[in-house]
Amino acid sequence: MRGAVIHAPGDVRYEERADPTIVEPTDAVIRTVAACVCGSDLWRYRGISSVPKPTPIGHEYVGVVEEVGSSVTSVRPGQFVVGGFLTSDNTCAVCRKGALANCLHRTGYDGCQAELIRVQNADGTLIATPETPADDLVPGILSLSDVMCTGWHAAVSADVRPGSTVVVVGDGAVGLSGVLAASQLGAERIIAMSRHASRQAIATDFGATHIVAERGDEGIAHVLDLTDGIGADSVLECVGTTESVTQALRAARPGGQVGWVGVPHDPEFPQQHMFWANVGLRGGPAPVRAYLPDLLERVWSRTIDPGRVFDLTLPLAEVADAYAAMDERRAIKVLLQP
Amino acid sequence: MRGAVIHAPGDVRYEERADPTIVEPTDAVIRTVAACVCGSDLWRYRGISSVPKPTPIGHEYVGVVEEVGSSVTSVRPGQFVVGGFLTSDNTCAVCRKGALANCLHRTGYDGCQAELIRVQNADGTLIATPETPADDLVPGILSLSDVMCTGWHAAVSADVRPGSTVVVVGDGAVGLSGVLAASQLGAERIIAMSRHASRQAIATDFGATHIVAERGDEGIAHVLDLTDGIGADSVLECVGTTESVTQALRAARPGGQVGWVGVPHDPEFPQQHMFWANVGLRGGPAPVRAYLPDLLERVWSRTIDPGRVFDLTLPLAEVADAYAAMDERRAIKVLLQP
Repeated sequence: MRGAVIHAPGDVRYEERADPTIVEPTDAVIRTVAACVCGSDLWRYRGISSVPKPTPIGHEYVGVVEEVGSSVTSVRPGQFVVGGFLTSDNTCAVCRKGALANCLHRTGYDGCQAELIRVQNADGTLIATPETPADDLVPGILSLSDVMCTGWHAAVSADVRPGSTVVVVGDGAVGLSGVLAASQLGAERIIAMSRHASRQAIATDFGATHIVAERGDEGIAHVLDLTDGIGADSVLECVGTTESVTQALRAARPGGQVGWVGVPHDPEFPQQHMFWANVGLRGGPAPVRAYLPDLLERVWSRTIDPGRVFDLTLPLAEVADAYAAMDERRAIKVLLQP
Repeated sequence: MRGAVIHAPGDVRYEERADPTIVEPTDAVIRTVAACVCGSDLWRYRGISSVPKPTPIGHEYVGVVEEVGSSVTSVRPGQFVVGGFLTSDNTCAVCRKGALANCLHRTGYDGCQAELIRVQNADGTLIATPETPADDLVPGILSLSDVMCTGWHAAVSADVRPGSTVVVVGDGAVGLSGVLAASQLGAERIIAMSRHASRQAIATDFGATHIVAERGDEGIAHVLDLTDGIGADSVLECVGTTESVTQALRAARPGGQVGWVGVPHDPEFPQQHMFWANVGLRGGPAPVRAYLPDLLERVWSRTIDPGRVFDLTLPLAEVADAYAAMDERRAIKVLLQP
């Protein structure tokens, strides 16, 4: 088969690789229907994370089951499936507490931007759709593999409830998904912080009631203007920089809650402010499998269309162009088709 | 009247001061029945916080109302009252959200280790007992002025629920109150981290099911032994040092929650761990007035006896000895009587 391999910063190649096989009885091998590039993949592409050797890349996918190991019972060959960016057994002590991204037996993938993918812990990771989805549902289902569940995790971690006032920091695919999540969870006011017209438009379609284009002190001032001068009940932090985490903590009202899902680069943030303002912070990698049944139902019933975050579709063979498009911010998120 | 004034680190004097008076129509003046020394008062006593000039000190009290301002309606002269370590109006936009410690009009006190105390925002701060309490109830009610509500806030912030497994870091008056709070909130296992026999005994009486005497890596290893190898659902951080906050974050299971109420000295803690382990952190100064009705009822009905944290009673005139006793850890917490 062929798949994407990152050789060095800026150097992603589509090349011949060995076909994955069933190694453990809990494995499945799926044939990819669609994959995509994650903002976190760009870290290596941009040289922020190191690339010590050529490495298969990608961790978001949907596909059709080719083969399953002898102990797999929840999916079978021929089914259309989606799984999260980490595998989970959904049975260990941590999974039973609901923190499936921290499964004691979790694994990553040997590159999902590929024609075939080995999925470990198949029973605890994959979920099959009721039938083969219509083509227009595929992007939405693919988004559940990471960004939509991550945005949902931000909203859950930020304690969004019916009637909440919410700020979303970050207008990438995760931030936009966070807007959609907050809306689905019943937020009354959703303030999307975004400076890009095309992203503002999606945010508004996803349920944002206000757009704040300013950043830093001006952005905070604008948020306070919109929130009785006190800040938001819930803030979704979907970037991961010192600036964005600080902005999120400052945008929360006293006693408010920040859900952070932006992978932290260099976490330096105002802990004294957190304490004295009674602002909570929780989040991390999303427990995708825990959210999948509910969110798949919302996508399948066409209640939500999170696939709108994909604004460019390319053949998988052009994966290098996909990275370039996202790196240069020409695309919010690129869908890849084998 | 007379009251405590801190002149410099290690130098607390009981001296003549001007009687407080009604300044605003929302004020009350109360005659102190009991006051006490807070762990945070020791910061200045120990020179960790500066003492730029002689300053009246103390912020925990119960007493009898002497006089109220013209707009005060909820308490009247002669009533026995308790209030929190900060005043709150209980009507502003922040108070309406429940974050009363962050009231937009909050104030501190001009020294509560004194015979008379001016209480600003009296209606939003004070709560009267049903009648004058029996002497043996006074310590418990006094504890609601700070430590018991602070321990309760730790447990609420740590999301303690029926059936939770809880770790409490810190065996001072707040930590012990946190044990009691966790027990009242239905925790199934409560692991108190303590190396002092007398404090272990109170912790056990307050509901601790396990004692861990080790600290650092050994302490974490012992906690893991007691929690299926994964850590606790909820951790109450009741100290405020880098070591204790780090220990608390590491004692939480993936997806767990830390409630922090130890005033942070030098907050440097493992933020990457917080993110990757999905461990939340929230807390800060307790919204005392929000918790008072419930907790006063529990004390009044003798359901709980949080006053047990007072293990030394001194005349207010001997306030300097009270500071020394707490500084030297000869007492957990000292009750002062005018």
